[in-house]
Amino acid sequence: MSFSDEDLSAVSWDGDAVSYIDQRLLPHEVARKRARTVDDIEEAIKTLAVRGAPAIGVFGAYGVALLRATIPNDSEFERAAERVRNARPTAVNLAWAVDRVSASRDMLGEAQAIHREQIAIDKAIADHGLEVIAKNAKILTHCNTGPIATAGGGTALGVIIHAARAGKKPHVFVDETRPLLQGGRLTYFELAHANVDATLQVDAAAAIAMQRKGIDLVIVGADRIARNGDTANKIGTYGLAVLAAHHGIPFYVAAPRSTFDFSMESGDAIHIEERKPEEVTSFGPATVAMSGARVYNPAFDVTPGHLVTAFITEYGVIAPPYLETIPPMQHRPNFSALV
Amino acid sequence: MSFSDEDLSAVSWDGDAVSYIDQRLLPHEVARKRARTVDDIEEAIKTLAVRGAPAIGVFGAYGVALLRATIPNDSEFERAAERVRNARPTAVNLAWAVDRVSASRDMLGEAQAIHREQIAIDKAIADHGLEVIAKNAKILTHCNTGPIATAGGGTALGVIIHAARAGKKPHVFVDETRPLLQGGRLTYFELAHANVDATLQVDAAAAIAMQRKGIDLVIVGADRIARNGDTANKIGTYGLAVLAAHHGIPFYVAAPRSTFDFSMESGDAIHIEERKPEEVTSFGPATVAMSGARVYNPAFDVTPGHLVTAFITEYGVIAPPYLETIPPMQHRPNFSALV
Repeated sequence: MSFSDEDLSAVSWDGDAVSYIDQRLLPHEVARKRARTVDDIEEAIKTLAVRGAPAIGVFGAYGVALLRATIPNDSEFERAAERVRNARPTAVNLAWAVDRVSASRDMLGEAQAIHREQIAIDKAIADHGLEVIAKNAKILTHCNTGPIATAGGGTALGVIIHAARAGKKPHVFVDETRPLLQGGRLTYFELAHANVDATLQVDAAAAIAMQRKGIDLVIVGADRIARNGDTANKIGTYGLAVLAAHHGIPFYVAAPRSTFDFSMESGDAIHIEERKPEEVTSFGPATVAMSGARVYNPAFDVTPGHLVTAFITEYGVIAPPYLETIPPMQHRPNFSALV
Repeated sequence: MSFSDEDLSAVSWDGDAVSYIDQRLLPHEVARKRARTVDDIEEAIKTLAVRGAPAIGVFGAYGVALLRATIPNDSEFERAAERVRNARPTAVNLAWAVDRVSASRDMLGEAQAIHREQIAIDKAIADHGLEVIAKNAKILTHCNTGPIATAGGGTALGVIIHAARAGKKPHVFVDETRPLLQGGRLTYFELAHANVDATLQVDAAAAIAMQRKGIDLVIVGADRIARNGDTANKIGTYGLAVLAAHHGIPFYVAAPRSTFDFSMESGDAIHIEERKPEEVTSFGPATVAMSGARVYNPAFDVTPGHLVTAFITEYGVIAPPYLETIPPMQHRPNFSALV
């Protein structure tokens, strides 16, 4: 199937509004909406209509530029910008982007620069990723790391889609990614949109897919990476890394430098956020388990660096030993200066 | 919470009907229903109102006894019994039970004997299982292997519930078991009913539970076991076995002798049944993925025998080397003769 006429930009500037895809309605409906007020912007972020840390950053950047253009009173603008900045406290990119735009004289220009940089970084990750993907590779991925999550080309999924466009004909096994099903709802949809061959499976089918379906490599994204390569990412990633090692399958993490926390020696210090039980006991209108069920619902897990074959970054493919190869990335020239 | 006043027998004889719990309504409603005609019996099996191969066997046994008592005409009875026999072709226990009851002079007595033997076998498995469960053990399990699946005490879950009643105070981590969610719907419910501490989690959280929650052992059931210990069971079991080995956690399979296929040298010959894509693309009344999505939906996977620490059977705990310890079980005295 082909959707080439549809506009799948997660976020874009629309003259007098910030345009975005309401991701809550995917994959059933591709609805572009327009945020024009601080209420619109805050709500889109809080309700997960816009999700994916980089996409939220770009959305917040345009949002603050829009507010500056529409709110003449300085203190009223500052209160509005602060509301945007705090709409998702865990999204580091959001506060960073709001601060950077707020400190600029040409706010719209700065927001557009942030967006251009995001696109350029994703493009560089995808270019470097080509070297790890052989022709006709069977690739397993988890969660959603595509264009709608970054407002650029995506990270792990960006690598895969770029490889497909380069003629490598990958076939992608997509974990549905319980509890929130980003794989089933978003990743499969983005691959179909990009005309990449894909197969959806439950998370518990990953092991047999590696054993019997000839998976050649695993590529996932990351939320946070320590100096030794320990990687926090969506729940289920750690299990995939163990399974990949057991089957002798390379396990790659695609992520920009901004995801690396150079102050963190290892993943031991990472606090595992637990989310509400209802994500597990229900799905949409369906109730799965008995009410009041006790639930363990960690949002992510930490994969030890020794299980990661390499990191695919905008600066290139970073291989072990990570304590020697990751820290120097901190002092590379700013990527924005290179584009 | 406690449900001790409710009757949770999956199947029972009710004088002029076969009484059963409609498992489709669990965990929201415990509804006992009465099957009185061949249509009732066939429908209960076909619609999964009664599920779990041993429970289906007991249900079919009583069903045929009921039909013999209510259908005077021999050829009419034989046609009805054949409909019951064929209601679920993959449930080996069903055809076996129907044939055994049909060949008996006292059909109700034979059905009751089959039921008593099932209860005794499950009880023996649970007794032997005590030796692998330490006090306060944290146990991870997958799918549903409890009383409602066997019409006895259950296999893997029977071991756990028995250990709780013996004062061992286990805590159970229950995989929800996508796609059909038997863990979330049935296992968590049965543990709550038995007053056993339990925590529900998505399947992809099993790895972090082993890494950070101190899981002491894994116990699962089985669909079919080869002479070398290769074990076919619900999709996700093989991944759990790999994860358990990685974390140095014992991995047990609880199953009666009838689950062992002594004619099968290894699991290589086991055909992996693939089920319909809608099980993955939808979630109760909710649709997850885009319509027409390509899906890989294997019903089960095969765990190599070398990843199984031991089998818990009605004859005792069977340890490696399996090619030496499994085949002799075939020639042990019939368990029914021992009870």
